[in-house]
Amino acid sequence: MKNILILNGPNLNLLGVREKSIYGAQDFDSYFSTLKNNYESVELSYFQSNTEGFIIDKLHEVGFEYDGIVLNAGAYTHTSVAIADAIAAINTPVVEVHISNVHTREEFRHHSYLSKNCVGVICGFGLDSYRLGVEALLAR
Amino acid sequence: MKNILILNGPNLNLLGVREKSIYGAQDFDSYFSTLKNNYESVELSYFQSNTEGFIIDKLHEVGFEYDGIVLNAGAYTHTSVAIADAIAAINTPVVEVHISNVHTREEFRHHSYLSKNCVGVICGFGLDSYRLGVEALLAR
Amino acid sequence: MKNILILNGPNLNLLGVREKSIYGAQDFDSYFSTLKNNYESVELSYFQSNTEGFIIDKLHEVGFEYDGIVLNAGAYTHTSVAIADAIAAINTPVVEVHISNVHTREEFRHHSYLSKNCVGVICGFGLDSYRLGVEALLAR
Amino acid sequence: MKNILILNGPNLNLLGVREKSIYGAQDFDSYFSTLKNNYESVELSYFQSNTEGFIIDKLHEVGFEYDGIVLNAGAYTHTSVAIADAIAAINTPVVEVHISNVHTREEFRHHSYLSKNCVGVICGFGLDSYRLGVEALLAR
Amino acid sequence: MKNILILNGPNLNLLGVREKSIYGAQDFDSYFSTLKNNYESVELSYFQSNTEGFIIDKLHEVGFEYDGIVLNAGAYTHTSVAIADAIAAINTPVVEVHISNVHTREEFRHHSYLSKNCVGVICGFGLDSYRLGVEALLAR
Amino acid sequence: MKNILILNGPNLNLLGVREKSIYGAQDFDSYFSTLKNNYESVELSYFQSNTEGFIIDKLHEVGFEYDGIVLNAGAYTHTSVAIADAIAAINTPVVEVHISNVHTREEFRHHSYLSKNCVGVICGFGLDSYRLGVEALLAR
Amino acid sequence: MKNILILNGPNLNLLGVREKSIYGAQDFDSYFSTLKNNYESVELSYFQSNTEGFIIDKLHEVGFEYDGIVLNAGAYTHTSVAIADAIAAINTPVVEVHISNVHTREEFRHHSYLSKNCVGVICGFGLDSYRLGVEALLAR
Amino acid sequence: MKNILILNGPNLNLLGVREKSIYGAQDFDSYFSTLKNNYESVELSYFQSNTEGFIIDKLHEVGFEYDGIVLNAGAYTHTSVAIADAIAAINTPVVEVHISNVHTREEFRHHSYLSKNCVGVICGFGLDSYRLGVEALLAR
Amino acid sequence: MKNILILNGPNLNLLGVREKSIYGAQDFDSYFSTLKNNYESVELSYFQSNTEGFIIDKLHEVGFEYDGIVLNAGAYTHTSVAIADAIAAINTPVVEVHISNVHTREEFRHHSYLSKNCVGVICGFGLDSYRLGVEALLAR
Amino acid sequence: MKNILILNGPNLNLLGVREKSIYGAQDFDSYFSTLKNNYESVELSYFQSNTEGFIIDKLHEVGFEYDGIVLNAGAYTHTSVAIADAIAAINTPVVEVHISNVHTREEFRHHSYLSKNCVGVICGFGLDSYRLGVEALLAR
Amino acid sequence: MKNILILNGPNLNLLGVREKSIYGAQDFDSYFSTLKNNYESVELSYFQSNTEGFIIDKLHEVGFEYDGIVLNAGAYTHTSVAIADAIAAINTPVVEVHISNVHTREEFRHHSYLSKNCVGVICGFGLDSYRLGVEALLAR
Amino acid sequence: MKNILILNGPNLNLLGVREKSIYGAQDFDSYFSTLKNNYESVELSYFQSNTEGFIIDKLHEVGFEYDGIVLNAGAYTHTSVAIADAIAAINTPVVEVHISNVHTREEFRHHSYLSKNCVGVICGFGLDSYRLGVEALLAR
Repeated sequence: MKNILILNGPNLNLLGVREKSIYGAQDFDSYFSTLKNNYESVELSYFQSNTEGFIIDKLHEVGFEYDGIVLNAGAYTHTSVAIADAIAAINTPVVEVHISNVHTREEFRHHSYLSKNCVGVICGFGLDSYRLGVEALLAR
Repeated sequence: MKNILILNGPNLNLLGVREKSIYGAQDFDSYFSTLKNNYESVELSYFQSNTEGFIIDKLHEVGFEYDGIVLNAGAYTHTSVAIADAIAAINTPVVEVHISNVHTREEFRHHSYLSKNCVGVICGFGLDSYRLGVEALLAR
Repeated sequence: MKNILILNGPNLNLLGVREKSIYGAQDFDSYFSTLKNNYESVELSYFQSNTEGFIIDKLHEVGFEYDGIVLNAGAYTHTSVAIADAIAAINTPVVEVHISNVHTREEFRHHSYLSKNCVGVICGFGLDSYRLGVEALLAR
Repeated sequence: MKNILILNGPNLNLLGVREKSIYGAQDFDSYFSTLKNNYESVELSYFQSNTEGFIIDKLHEVGFEYDGIVLNAGAYTHTSVAIADAIAAINTPVVEVHISNVHTREEFRHHSYLSKNCVGVICGFGLDSYRLGVEALLAR
Repeated sequence: MKNILILNGPNLNLLGVREKSIYGAQDFDSYFSTLKNNYESVELSYFQSNTEGFIIDKLHEVGFEYDGIVLNAGAYTHTSVAIADAIAAINTPVVEVHISNVHTREEFRHHSYLSKNCVGVICGFGLDSYRLGVEALLAR
Repeated sequence: MKNILILNGPNLNLLGVREKSIYGAQDFDSYFSTLKNNYESVELSYFQSNTEGFIIDKLHEVGFEYDGIVLNAGAYTHTSVAIADAIAAINTPVVEVHISNVHTREEFRHHSYLSKNCVGVICGFGLDSYRLGVEALLAR
Repeated sequence: MKNILILNGPNLNLLGVREKSIYGAQDFDSYFSTLKNNYESVELSYFQSNTEGFIIDKLHEVGFEYDGIVLNAGAYTHTSVAIADAIAAINTPVVEVHISNVHTREEFRHHSYLSKNCVGVICGFGLDSYRLGVEALLAR
Repeated sequence: MKNILILNGPNLNLLGVREKSIYGAQDFDSYFSTLKNNYESVELSYFQSNTEGFIIDKLHEVGFEYDGIVLNAGAYTHTSVAIADAIAAINTPVVEVHISNVHTREEFRHHSYLSKNCVGVICGFGLDSYRLGVEALLAR
Repeated sequence: MKNILILNGPNLNLLGVREKSIYGAQDFDSYFSTLKNNYESVELSYFQSNTEGFIIDKLHEVGFEYDGIVLNAGAYTHTSVAIADAIAAINTPVVEVHISNVHTREEFRHHSYLSKNCVGVICGFGLDSYRLGVEALLAR
Repeated sequence: MKNILILNGPNLNLLGVREKSIYGAQDFDSYFSTLKNNYESVELSYFQSNTEGFIIDKLHEVGFEYDGIVLNAGAYTHTSVAIADAIAAINTPVVEVHISNVHTREEFRHHSYLSKNCVGVICGFGLDSYRLGVEALLAR
Repeated sequence: MKNILILNGPNLNLLGVREKSIYGAQDFDSYFSTLKNNYESVELSYFQSNTEGFIIDKLHEVGFEYDGIVLNAGAYTHTSVAIADAIAAINTPVVEVHISNVHTREEFRHHSYLSKNCVGVICGFGLDSYRLGVEALLAR
Repeated sequence: MKNILILNGPNLNLLGVREKSIYGAQDFDSYFSTLKNNYESVELSYFQSNTEGFIIDKLHEVGFEYDGIVLNAGAYTHTSVAIADAIAAINTPVVEVHISNVHTREEFRHHSYLSKNCVGVICGFGLDSYRLGVEALLAR
């Protein structure tokens, strides 16, 4: 049985509350329940933090044992060299996902420090981006 | 039954021949056969051209009738405003895919003129990027 | 009797279909008929292609015989050094026109490779930009 | 009967004196007389100033009453956010015109603060640019 | 009675200790006491953290209940997309304040990620910037 | 009794007429009357000009005698080194104010030549920005 | 007898009052008297304005009759394409002078729109820059 | 006997017609005949197209069989990532040549997307650049 | 006896585990033991955190009492204005060290926000960089 | 009696030979003789080198004893931080001169590393720039 | 009999010693002997220096008498305006050559100050680049 | 016994004379004597030149025999690709040192062409930077 972590960054605890026109109205917990049911043979876990350092701590914690990480680092995608370094330092493959199509938003959201250290990037498919991330990890 | 076109741009006819360290050794035709078998209830078709204008012609041709397009525009991703305009002009949703993780390559491959007009972007998963693109279209 | 070619670039075959909020709802054929009627003493002809190379071929074909060319190169305006070179290479004067006011759109549409090789530029007046282009050529 | 103002910016009082290789040898007054005669059913008026603020004053004065303004703001085209704001603030449509093809001149003349607030832009046709500007306004 | 939070970012716990030539010699606690006394009909509270994520946590906590936030994010003003996103995600209006006139300091302090998501910006008035921030919120 | 001048730059004479979605519908005269009544012990005066040079003249005129200036230089904020120099040359403290939150508008409005020579900056609070400017000057 | 105009731009009426650490404490009138006495065979005249347009008016007025102009355009040096155009349009040679060494000041003062249209540039010698400008014109 | 292809890009069909001051007055056919005669033991062939995609098609066609390609991609040199990718994808060595010294022309002609994938670059020797390209290939 | 703190930033807890080709295979604890033994007359202490804010907290805690800090801020070196401000705010001298030669790595690692507030910088000597940092502090 | 050195940089030994359209046809030796005669009470000396390091050696040699240096560093003006440092290191005032108006030439000639360390700059007056440089030094 | 100089810049004395993976293992003296033998009717000479000024001295010395110069300026290619000026100042045509394909190396090696003043450029053919340079000169 | 060369670039012969506020008042000779005494088992030698080419000559001379070089290239650090190439070409390890903390000085001093070819970099510790450089070499 494979271990896969879904790891969410800053403000993603507000999913379903925050700017619904961009992120949609579904809260993440209900989405995560559905997702777990779809992948019964996978041990899916979930962690969220608004603090850059705690995301790094989590990557260190699971990054030598889990089979894959689906990471939506939110705004830290565009500013955190430290998270990028953490991804490079661990052994577990990481897939970068985004709910919205970041390329339709502000210029500074078009650049990701993380992408080059990840296996691949999936963005723009709403919450379905997470499922596609899990799919991509399972197909490796 | 849904109609989905896989549309490949320049040099992708050489898949399996060209720079195998980047794109892998499988040729696209055999991959496409397998993919069609996996999606029996989908009408999957395929088109490739090295000419920017012919890619635009194809987008116009299917872009008001098909249910989705999985587009790997290759190098035109980074230089073609005209293909970007064609995507914006048609009604069919387009998913941008890349075989390699473009963010690990030259700086000029990090920018895509197409992304903002596409539904979403998937890159870095080898040929599996195409399957994820089909998945993303079917889940809409 | 003067020979003037109206030459349209990529996606302009979709006029009246595509993004009507930007380009308006009239299709180009009906507009062209009206225009021809207004200039009975001018031999007005029309060519459109989505392929950069075919636009260059056309410029070469008429560019040493016609009295003027009204060119809307669409997206190639912003990316094609080759079309700019073709304009410089021929003898026929070329007027660059745009239907929309490109300066109200994306940053990359503010730069034209073609302008410096054209007689002049007219943009923002909808389909009337073509008529003004013909006017400008006749007044030379 | 329509009211249209031709509004000229700095140094354009020297037309016919100044750098004839760029702007031609005809002085503006004689050109303006001819133009008025061509449009007998239009009330054409003319104003010129070297002072940015006085051009703004004029735009305010006529900008809620006239039917159109043909503006050649000269060098202020490239430096004046204030004139651009004035154009946005008034109701009368403004057409930006230039005598020379600014795209064949210095880099800093390729950018106009005014264009995005104007109906359209016409440049490169010598003094005939003014007539085309009037034409464009009458066709609206 | 209105609830207003004064929220201070990194290093502002050192006010009165740190670089007195820039920030002045008064410590924030004594200033805050005086300020509370001036606004008896307002429930003024105060929070400070050196950790980006804890500032986001606080914005989430009060951002759907309080009437206003006066935010001096210190150095995070210039680097934190995550705090900017948090401000956009909550309902409570935020006023950005700075003690020093940031425009007289290093170039990188001239840009704020936060400003466009805030109601307005006040900078350069020493500790009085906080009072003006409260004033601005009360006048809405 | 203190002398404070409110000094408005180009197009601000159109307040209440111009782009109401940005600047609001109140005209400045009625606002100024109310403001004067609120500060009975202050000699508040008002000057507006669309001409950069006349704004400089005014700064020279009052800048060695008044107790403060609240300056909304409008578009000249972003282009005028000369006004910035005038502020540096006089003794009277100047507070820079803006009605709209300039950081939500075009990129070129994010830079001010004036800020570094002013005491401080206040923007985004509508006409209330002027009152906050007066408050800031009186608290010095 | 030669006619030479000394033409000063914005804020230079404050010489001897303004920022003495940069510009020195001598007022321009007394300096100009001394200068006139040194050049008895030259008709030296003087004009100053804070308004860009009036400087252009003056250049037009004398620019086809005088033998030389010593121009210190102050802050307009760095922002005025219109004055640069006026210099190019007239026949009288113009020498650009600056009191301070502009290269020791802010970055934006290192660029002059005027220099390329002037005969030459002299900067950094205090008020003596004007005398050197006159010298340079007389030696031509 | 070695196979070498000379491959010309857009507008080079006009050699001897077009801008003679830059490219010279000799047409390419007569030059090519002379060149063939000089290299009797080499199978020299020639292809020209104005279409980017057809140049790619040709590179694919000969790029796994020929001994060398002398490529003058004309304007596509500066804009085509797709041709650069085609050169990288084939096995045949490619020498980039230019008739004019591109470094004496516009800034955008100083950058070539192709150079890094070619064996080497030769430019500025008129039509003799082609002969030097053949020489370079034969010496490998 | 002098107090010196060695302060490590994000991911440096993985030393000896992470990317050994860059950082070497020795873990920091064993290195630190050896280092302490070499400096018996110095009170050497050690702190590591992945959280930017906790590094700031630590700098505040020891920064008014210790004799020196050897800081390897890892990735925060390149992104943290807040840590730079903390260094400027405290009295204890800080030496910036890096294990690898950052100038041989990605462009964004060539810039440090911290350097200008530190006494000096030492990079590229592997773990020996820490010893050289202690040496530098003791020699002051 | 004052000691003044005229110091010329690379290629200036070719004056009168080289690019006469830019630098004029007079050779420097004959000019220097005339200049010496004009300043009988000044000890004028002359040195030229094509080597950056020898120019620095000369600046060191005379820079603590002479009363002034008139320096035309030629191309090193735009590339030599080392000469700029030498000027800053010595006590003798240096005036930067150029024969041509560098602002009418290539972009890279508009920037001088030397200017900010010199007393002032004089350019564009042909060989007369040297005399004006001597004048400026004598007037100090 | 024609005189041609081969002129090598800094570090090229180490050819055959230095970084063999880039420059090859052959030393230049043996290559030069072979080359001389191939061109018996040409007077080939050779000069190398690590000093920018001595290269300029050499260009001056032969630049009015020789028939051609093949110049590999090494690193000075990318930094020396002074050598570029020397090439422009002399009459002898100069061909710029490079052993390696500079476009496959660091970004700063893609720009040459020299190219625009040379007849043409040849790079990437190993030591054979020198022979091609001689060929190009002889064919003129 | 190890051979280590201390190699100083331009203007460093003035140490103790030049800008004492930046570089301190001690002259290098007396410092060097002390340093030699501290490392009795090391053969320390010293060379200084103001000429870029002579520094390269020296690097070539000792660079295949010595055990280490401590290089302070002064201003050439920021401009010399040729010295960087020389460091790459030799076998002896080079440590880059600076007396001042270059990051507190002008922007152009923040970039070093040399760093990526050196073992490591040490800056900001006054003359003690040289000792730390020797230490670093001995510890290898």
